[in-house]
Amino acid sequence: MKKEYDVIIVGGGPAGMTAAIYAKRAALDTLIIEKQPFCGGQVLNTYEVDNYPGLPGIDGFSLSEKFHGHARNLEAEFYTGEMIELCEEGKKKVVVLSNGERIYAKGVILALGSVHRKAMVPGEEELKGKGVSYCATCDGAFFRDQTTAVIGGGDVALEDAIFLARGCKKVYLIHRRDELRGAKILQNKLLSLDNVEVLWDTVIEKIEGDQFVTGVSLQNVKTGEKSELSLDGVFVAIGTVPDTKALKGTLDLDENGYIVAGEDGITSMPGVFCGGDCRTKKLRQIVTSAADGANCVFSLEQYLMKL
Amino acid sequence: MKKEYDVIIVGGGPAGMTAAIYAKRAALDTLIIEKQPFCGGQVLNTYEVDNYPGLPGIDGFSLSEKFHGHARNLEAEFYTGEMIELCEEGKKKVVVLSNGERIYAKGVILALGSVHRKAMVPGEEELKGKGVSYCATCDGAFFRDQTTAVIGGGDVALEDAIFLARGCKKVYLIHRRDELRGAKILQNKLLSLDNVEVLWDTVIEKIEGDQFVTGVSLQNVKTGEKSELSLDGVFVAIGTVPDTKALKGTLDLDENGYIVAGEDGITSMPGVFCGGDCRTKKLRQIVTSAADGANCVFSLEQYLMKL
Repeated sequence: MKKEYDVIIVGGGPAGMTAAIYAKRAALDTLIIEKQPFCGGQVLNTYEVDNYPGLPGIDGFSLSEKFHGHARNLEAEFYTGEMIELCEEGKKKVVVLSNGERIYAKGVILALGSVHRKAMVPGEEELKGKGVSYCATCDGAFFRDQTTAVIGGGDVALEDAIFLARGCKKVYLIHRRDELRGAKILQNKLLSLDNVEVLWDTVIEKIEGDQFVTGVSLQNVKTGEKSELSLDGVFVAIGTVPDTKALKGTLDLDENGYIVAGEDGITSMPGVFCGGDCRTKKLRQIVTSAADGANCVFSLEQYLMKL
Repeated sequence: MKKEYDVIIVGGGPAGMTAAIYAKRAALDTLIIEKQPFCGGQVLNTYEVDNYPGLPGIDGFSLSEKFHGHARNLEAEFYTGEMIELCEEGKKKVVVLSNGERIYAKGVILALGSVHRKAMVPGEEELKGKGVSYCATCDGAFFRDQTTAVIGGGDVALEDAIFLARGCKKVYLIHRRDELRGAKILQNKLLSLDNVEVLWDTVIEKIEGDQFVTGVSLQNVKTGEKSELSLDGVFVAIGTVPDTKALKGTLDLDENGYIVAGEDGITSMPGVFCGGDCRTKKLRQIVTSAADGANCVFSLEQYLMKL
């Protein structure tokens, strides 16, 4: 790794990797910083991706590898590290890493992605990794022939329940409302499975267990009725929050922590662009993240021309 | 084909095909209308696509087939026809085809793409297909070991010149300015080729030839000097215009004919969405078109929920 680049891309998911592809094709000296040892972001832990156009039914690991390989072929440089601060020295941007390293660039593209939202119930933190999971793809196989529950009602919750139903004896979907938000194609599939049961209007009050999850305490939000359910595992799939805590006070974030930027990725800090799940936008998908990466580089090129 | 659908997607390029993938996954009854017998749009005629993330160095025909196959696997319905009018009957949208057929839908997604811009010089129209071409990938092979010129200075012009240089004896790039707009990686590649010569600050005044192109009359825009150049073929690569003439007076277009819409694809006509090259946007790429298709379906779903 050098001390200075044309552009530093922070984050190695679909947005960051696409930004790398476009930056290298624009002949920009490019460094991608990813905090995990493998690039891919959330995609990496997705069992099957069926909505990235042109690559139907691909597993998340393979799709990540395709993105990564594409960027590597163009000789993009990768580095494992965590950004803890973004600042300026004159016209240069400085990305400060948790190990104290300071890397300089003319421009920065933030593709920070998002992380899993917590259920915020007693027992969750204590039993994390002991039956409480945020990734069915990662941990589902540990629960073969056992009984699990998925908390949530969006696409990811439905996908997780469908995935778990292949290996588990029984899967409960616990949802606080009386209808699901997830895509209809997923709803239809889920409701057709014999070993899946949806618990409507239901919230989890506590995750029970000592060494390992043994069950959950539930309440029906309409009737107020309480109940207990024996379980071997609980999968929390209630969404994600942007990974932008290092940026508080540096550039404009919305009330949920997303970086304020339009389609062009232009943030409140000149020379800093953002794309993917960390940006204020309506639809967070792999293909929209990838498009963001391309748009960020286009905006960066226009910024550099004026520098 | 039925008389009525949930959604009609007009155009089978990356935006339309991605809209089809997302619409079918959303369990919407979907018809895609493409005027050409093959889907793919401009991509279909691209020799090599190297910037669609995850599928490096793929030829345009294969990439189109991957998109098409992805939509076909989800049982999207395709129909060959040309839209000549878009109107409303009550709350229903009506797509009128050139053969007089009228097809109804709750919502319409316009993914009309764009077409090649003409050089507007004497001889161009007369010698079209007789040495004048707008697609190096399609026609380049006819000029093996001959001398050709590409008009333009953007990505497509550079790509065309690089492509032609593989088979032609000599390729001129004729550009009206003293610097190129295309990506630096393409500029570097082009300028490294022995059989390519760039004619800077130069415009074509006339394309010469009787039965077939024999050359061009040129003028240097800085010195005013005129010259003649013997050629076997002329490739016009000066950009594209949106294919939106059927929509004049129906919904808001900008001064260049692009449909006015933001990232969400929402047009001035409720229930009608647009994406891809026909939309007002900064960066027109395959991946940004694909993202548009996904965003259009998301906006359509929100519209249908309120219907």
